[in-house]
Amino acid sequence: MTARPLAVTLGDPAGIGPELTLRAFADRQALGLPSFVAIGSRATLEAHAAALGDRCDVFPCASPDDASRAPDNSLPLIATGNDAPVTPGVLTEDGAQTSIASIEAAVRLALDGAIAGIVTQPINKANMVQAGFAHPGHTEFLAALSARHGKATSQPVMMLAAGDFRVIPITVHIPLSAVPKALSTDLIVETGVTVAHVLRTDFGIAAPRLAVAGLNPHAGERGVLGTEDDAIIAPAIARLNDRGIATTGPHPADTLFHAAARATYDAALAMYHDQALIPIKTVAFDEAVNVTLGLPFVRTSPDHGTAIDIAGQGLARPDSFIAALRLADTMAQSRYG
Amino acid sequence: MTARPLAVTLGDPAGIGPELTLRAFADRQALGLPSFVAIGSRATLEAHAAALGDRCDVFPCASPDDASRAPDNSLPLIATGNDAPVTPGVLTEDGAQTSIASIEAAVRLALDGAIAGIVTQPINKANMVQAGFAHPGHTEFLAALSARHGKATSQPVMMLAAGDFRVIPITVHIPLSAVPKALSTDLIVETGVTVAHVLRTDFGIAAPRLAVAGLNPHAGERGVLGTEDDAIIAPAIARLNDRGIATTGPHPADTLFHAAARATYDAALAMYHDQALIPIKTVAFDEAVNVTLGLPFVRTSPDHGTAIDIAGQGLARPDSFIAALRLADTMAQSRYG
Repeated sequence: MTARPLAVTLGDPAGIGPELTLRAFADRQALGLPSFVAIGSRATLEAHAAALGDRCDVFPCASPDDASRAPDNSLPLIATGNDAPVTPGVLTEDGAQTSIASIEAAVRLALDGAIAGIVTQPINKANMVQAGFAHPGHTEFLAALSARHGKATSQPVMMLAAGDFRVIPITVHIPLSAVPKALSTDLIVETGVTVAHVLRTDFGIAAPRLAVAGLNPHAGERGVLGTEDDAIIAPAIARLNDRGIATTGPHPADTLFHAAARATYDAALAMYHDQALIPIKTVAFDEAVNVTLGLPFVRTSPDHGTAIDIAGQGLARPDSFIAALRLADTMAQSRYG
Repeated sequence: MTARPLAVTLGDPAGIGPELTLRAFADRQALGLPSFVAIGSRATLEAHAAALGDRCDVFPCASPDDASRAPDNSLPLIATGNDAPVTPGVLTEDGAQTSIASIEAAVRLALDGAIAGIVTQPINKANMVQAGFAHPGHTEFLAALSARHGKATSQPVMMLAAGDFRVIPITVHIPLSAVPKALSTDLIVETGVTVAHVLRTDFGIAAPRLAVAGLNPHAGERGVLGTEDDAIIAPAIARLNDRGIATTGPHPADTLFHAAARATYDAALAMYHDQALIPIKTVAFDEAVNVTLGLPFVRTSPDHGTAIDIAGQGLARPDSFIAALRLADTMAQSRYG
């Protein structure tokens, strides 16, 4: 099963996704990368390949199976979209449609079992909304496509991972003032159950250990600095333990993420976006990978945006994309054996 | 002026303050530490010195001037409190009174110009409250004592420092739900002015550069994820720049603290406790030093508590105290020349 390639959706063709994909492909042997097939704009990918000279070429193909016939220095591509020429840094409606089509194609291939998993390069949501995209984000679109194909998903959960450092924000893209009311014991328990499940299936951790951050300074200091730690978070930790998931906390968040503390757990649940993302991006800014848990397939993505201000200039670093490829491969091998 | 010693208040005698002070003193030559005089419980310090064997002794003295007469292996001590014997780990009212008396003595010496600055070992606030202590915390007590002696202070500001990594929480010990309403443009400006002033006087930075974190994920993403970044924080940044203080932001907090980002500023203002403390404790857990800005004297403290559960067992690490001593010395040399 693991002989199947990964699929890399190229994201918005005006962004840095196509060039990072090609640069990683050109260095794949030195880097020891898993095999992958690109899905997206052919015109864009060929333009970037031309810019790289004879380091690599593009091999258009109809399916992941065909990809194995690609010449040694050619990145296999399943072309999607209408493929109008794209200037790096210039967002267009054609580019948005190509972004959408590549994600749809990748999900179909994943649900058909033709690929080992999906690595998504960044899309530009504002550009896609202008083109009629009506989903809250990339992840929700992947979940909706899965449901459309009859595959049930649990609520998708966002995880950031860099090596053994794994963090999950319980709430994500909401104002900080909305966080306390958005938290519930049920939400923390459901998220913890999804996280523990995926740590077992995709990360090979037989008995995952979760650590849960408090919401307030010092985890509320017994109610003096806030009530949510005792009223909402502590009961969730008790319920997770009742379900056989080894879970500790609520821990003061400021002392939960240094190296010695991290050695005591496999993943940390944080209560809000910055509480999760500040520590991992502080220590692993270029290597952190975004992982979506709860989809019916493996999905990772580099932890950066389209970076249209530097697209096409060869300035973007492929570190996070390379880490995303490697992690998707590791997860697929763990899941499918 | 810098020939004056620092003063180290020993904190609660039942905590780890006395033993850490002695252990640092015993190694002071190898560590190249500045000279300091202890202020606190004589019985406790002598008991810990006896436990260390012939590595060091205690030299009781009446003033910092007398301290210079201490034999080579003897830690000068200005004894305060009633000095009842204290068992490590067992909090007593006598210990609380000794804690209070040592802080009062240190402030008097600092305001008299007899010491270069104060390094405070941790107190146990709950124990002190039982003994009648009515201040919100250590820092507020230092400010109140300064005011009682007729020395005006600005609102004291807490800074955490580890080398060139300096963070300042604009709000500190309040519930997270109270943070948005506690923030104001004035508070951010006042804090920034104090920080810039101290960076000049005590850190030798002629033109300090401040970076300000946003409150919300992605610094609010132009209002989509919260309004405070644009409505409260951005105007403060404009006013700080108007006052000649180079200030950038509001920055997304998750990308503000990695090494490359930190190279662009001298201190970061964060909006709440964990936003400031998570990044610095994640990368410098044992070395972070607590600095109080806005007092009429230099004051640093190790960034840990009394740790009464391990007091007297030789388990506590002196790293943060040693860093606090060094930083107080550096600050005093910069301030007094």
